[in-house]
Amino acid sequence: MRANERIDAAMTRAFELADLGPARGVNPRVGCVILGRDGRVIAEGHHRGSGTAHAEVDALSRLPAGAAAGATAVVTLEPCNHTGRTGPCSEALIAAGIARVVFAVDDPGNSSGGGGERLRAAGIEVERGFRREEGEIFLDDWLTAARLGRPRIIVKWASTLDGRVAATDGSSRWITGSAARADVHRRRSLVDAIGVGTGTVLADDPALTARDGDRLAEYQPIPVVFGRTAVPPGARVRAHPRGLLTSPGNALVGEFSALHTRGIRSLLIEGGPRFASAVIATGLVDEVHVYLAPLLLGGPRTALTDIGAATLADGLRLDVRETVSLGADLLLIAVPKGRH
Amino acid sequence: MRANERIDAAMTRAFELADLGPARGVNPRVGCVILGRDGRVIAEGHHRGSGTAHAEVDALSRLPAGAAAGATAVVTLEPCNHTGRTGPCSEALIAAGIARVVFAVDDPGNSSGGGGERLRAAGIEVERGFRREEGEIFLDDWLTAARLGRPRIIVKWASTLDGRVAATDGSSRWITGSAARADVHRRRSLVDAIGVGTGTVLADDPALTARDGDRLAEYQPIPVVFGRTAVPPGARVRAHPRGLLTSPGNALVGEFSALHTRGIRSLLIEGGPRFASAVIATGLVDEVHVYLAPLLLGGPRTALTDIGAATLADGLRLDVRETVSLGADLLLIAVPKGRH
Repeated sequence: MRANERIDAAMTRAFELADLGPARGVNPRVGCVILGRDGRVIAEGHHRGSGTAHAEVDALSRLPAGAAAGATAVVTLEPCNHTGRTGPCSEALIAAGIARVVFAVDDPGNSSGGGGERLRAAGIEVERGFRREEGEIFLDDWLTAARLGRPRIIVKWASTLDGRVAATDGSSRWITGSAARADVHRRRSLVDAIGVGTGTVLADDPALTARDGDRLAEYQPIPVVFGRTAVPPGARVRAHPRGLLTSPGNALVGEFSALHTRGIRSLLIEGGPRFASAVIATGLVDEVHVYLAPLLLGGPRTALTDIGAATLADGLRLDVRETVSLGADLLLIAVPKGRH
Repeated sequence: MRANERIDAAMTRAFELADLGPARGVNPRVGCVILGRDGRVIAEGHHRGSGTAHAEVDALSRLPAGAAAGATAVVTLEPCNHTGRTGPCSEALIAAGIARVVFAVDDPGNSSGGGGERLRAAGIEVERGFRREEGEIFLDDWLTAARLGRPRIIVKWASTLDGRVAATDGSSRWITGSAARADVHRRRSLVDAIGVGTGTVLADDPALTARDGDRLAEYQPIPVVFGRTAVPPGARVRAHPRGLLTSPGNALVGEFSALHTRGIRSLLIEGGPRFASAVIATGLVDEVHVYLAPLLLGGPRTALTDIGAATLADGLRLDVRETVSLGADLLLIAVPKGRH
């Protein structure tokens, strides 16, 4: 095997190792393979979640002292330059005598980035961006969240074809069919947190769990209730298996950042109309999921209220990325124009 | 050729003849073929529009006196039993000495129906429903309109994904893209009339013409303005090539019947929101065309207002028949559940 092929094979293995780590939480999933001077694999490592060793340190820890001297480290993400609960990986690689570092994705973090420069300054040969695109797809919403300094934000609603979420008297069960409702639960399982306004908690008393039929799904998103009105003691969301976060809801940009600091990479906003509209008005929406039921209702209960668009040019233009048929209903997945 | 094959061939030809007639107007397109005693075609006829001979009379008129005695008339629609501007076809067939009449579709008219019974009572052999389904598809909205005693009613609107037809300040050009707008014009050319409320005329001053780019389409639907407010003298719709019909808009069921009596088989309701909602509230909608643009606006200008649905069960459930991509927009064509 030639040198390049060995690096390539090591990166493939590093992605496999990364994939063993936890998909959620504040830290990214990272894998690391160390190749000795002869190009053979001498150690492997990956990150197992917040508070545990980073991938590079994990790999180095498997080697006797001095064994990494002159070796090449192949990592899925730029080694960090940041002392958190663990020391910076760049320093550990320097101390171990690593001669060359190849990584896929740049670390976008303000505090954790710059590892590549640090390594280069210490005389290590650095190759950045090796299979970068693959790495970016792999890191997905961790990367988005790290770049944005906030969770990836999805606003979701289910409405009639004429944009109503309930009839005039408030009745809304069910506007969409069972396939669409099951899809909502499946998508709840794909995010770190679900956000609703206190109005929705008071009006609908949702459990905000992800369910598969009558059973709780294995993975539960964290419920976050936004608003200054207290969540009533008997509210169903208080019995949520992940506990309950609350947030004042009056300074959303900062509140979203605070959720990111807690490790929330993706936040699914489920309403109600006023809260969803307030989130859209911040301009921080990354994705919109609209379930449309073939039904007309008219009346005052619209899915959105005021999103701050006084004139047509202020509207939020979207690119529809996917249209999914769910029984008689339609799911449109769209992203703001020019985003991503 | 066997007798049945001759009848079949004659019916095929009768449909071709019918197709030569005008597709719009108060009368259906009908074709008639007369087979002599030996089974050969001896005459053909079709209807050329209101005030001209019906197909059967047209065919008989091509024969010398006595030549139709003992012959078979093959007609796409039941011969009428009604003296309008022309005499009833059933009497003409009896007088000509026709021995057998084969037709595809029953005449659903209250005044014109019953021709088959009249013929039978006169001793003529009658076969009804020969290739009926084909005939019904051919007669399409004439038949629907005749059965309903009103035009086929399509309600159309173009809205954002959240159901708005304009921003708060009223700006609405353009919510949908050029492909969707061209589709609207194409579909205007497929109906007999376009209906709007006076509010729309006052607010938007629409021309209500069918256009192909900047050119007027060859066929123009009749504009009908509903409401008691007068259409201003300078309104663009007053310059419509088909003239202008007005209707009070306060007793829609009767007004729709009156339009049918004038020969309007299909009526495309184009708004505005209050008028479209009032039409939906009558329960007389046969089809809904919703153009959805990937845009969010929020605010008060919804595509529908009050359709009389106080509670969820009162909503108008639809079957989506077609979903058409038009540039970035989506057209959903739906019919009320259980209709057709």
